Amino acid sequence: MSGKVICVGLGPGDPDLMSVKADRLIRGAGHVAFFRKAGRKGQARQIVEGMLHPKATEYAMEYPVTTEIHFSDPEYNRILSEFYADWADRLAALAKTDDVIVLCEGDPFFYGSFMHLHSRLQGRTEVEIVPGITGMSGCWTATDQPITWGDDVLTVLMATLPEEELTERAKGSDALVFMKIGRNLPKLRRALKAAGRLDAAWLVERGTMPGQTVQKLSEIDDIVPYFAIAIVHGHGRRP
Amino acid sequence: MSGKVICVGLGPGDPDLMSVKADRLIRGAGHVAFFRKAGRKGQARQIVEGMLHPKATEYAMEYPVTTEIHFSDPEYNRILSEFYADWADRLAALAKTDDVIVLCEGDPFFYGSFMHLHSRLQGRTEVEIVPGITGMSGCWTATDQPITWGDDVLTVLMATLPEEELTERAKGSDALVFMKIGRNLPKLRRALKAAGRLDAAWLVERGTMPGQTVQKLSEIDDIVPYFAIAIVHGHGRRP
Repeated sequence: MSGKVICVGLGPGDPDLMSVKADRLIRGAGHVAFFRKAGRKGQARQIVEGMLHPKATEYAMEYPVTTEIHFSDPEYNRILSEFYADWADRLAALAKTDDVIVLCEGDPFFYGSFMHLHSRLQGRTEVEIVPGITGMSGCWTATDQPITWGDDVLTVLMATLPEEELTERAKGSDALVFMKIGRNLPKLRRALKAAGRLDAAWLVERGTMPGQTVQKLSEIDDIVPYFAIAIVHGHGRRP
Repeated sequence: MSGKVICVGLGPGDPDLMSVKADRLIRGAGHVAFFRKAGRKGQARQIVEGMLHPKATEYAMEYPVTTEIHFSDPEYNRILSEFYADWADRLAALAKTDDVIVLCEGDPFFYGSFMHLHSRLQGRTEVEIVPGITGMSGCWTATDQPITWGDDVLTVLMATLPEEELTERAKGSDALVFMKIGRNLPKLRRALKAAGRLDAAWLVERGTMPGQTVQKLSEIDDIVPYFAIAIVHGHGRRP
């Protein structure tokens, strides 16, 4: 008897938008693991609130570090690497006898954290990935406008990149999705302005979730969350 | 009493990967519309086989032209524009009394055909979009490798673009997704080779569906479908 590790994409946040397969796996799971920041409930865990079996065992995989150390510091890499190795061991041990469900927001293979376990579980246990609707898809749906038409080129990039690179890429793509906004907002705003795209940019927070907001990026002065997403729609060929 | 037009994203093809919301709306629908090529059953309709209510009325929206006329020909635009206008009228008329479900493969706002109805329905009837898992997500999941890590830049583009542009963009992005392959495969292969990315490229057909295939793009000599997807994975920061 042996199990496997199944990483289940939860989609953009509305539980009604997770897949039929994800819904079934989560409700039937005996072991449920999820990442979270220490001291928080965790966004992934919150999405499945009310869905878990009363007898399910939960495993909160708490990041030992998030923004306290910069990711360019070797210590950041060492601590996180140890964390992932430890959890890969624990999940592999559980999967010797049972299936283990790992919850992941959005789509697991699209900028997800699970990939750091995925690479460490290779050859040790069976691993299955259930794709999900991406957070960015939830956000462009929230804007009520198509993100791409016809032969539009779409670029997805992080607002953590240098300002010059943000500007060049904003100039060179029909449609754009910027993730990891947070304190990078002023830099992103300057880059979009330099590229002539600022007036076409939208900022979406909590796409598909309660409290969802869609605003023109040029009109935002406040601090925005790290997980907000900025969008510039394409305007390609249309009959 | 009035209804609305609800465009439901079906996801990449496996019915188990459509959202809980999509599943519920489709099973309960009284009116179900979908695009298809004349003379075909239609991929969207096939995905929901066995799910429709016995009394549901079906509306096959058959494209009056696909590749018989090139899209640069004004006649192509005129014929398609008339087709979308006609169906917008018919769906708006139905929605005066009932909800109408429009089936869309993948995610409706991501290179979908529904957007041509969406723009023509504005102000005439309520329109709702249910996002879905994209076809590309089904394809990168099929490769069993993450598409993007850390600060990777992802570019999504059509293999219909000129060879030089394909080459430049293949050089300038960490991760790549090419859609609309078909007869553009030889051009795409040359572009990837010129960019030094050919050996890292995969071709996925029928991702998440029966008959799914994942092959190294460099090893393909056959004709591939228009809806095959080519993938180059990113290899960004990882602890």
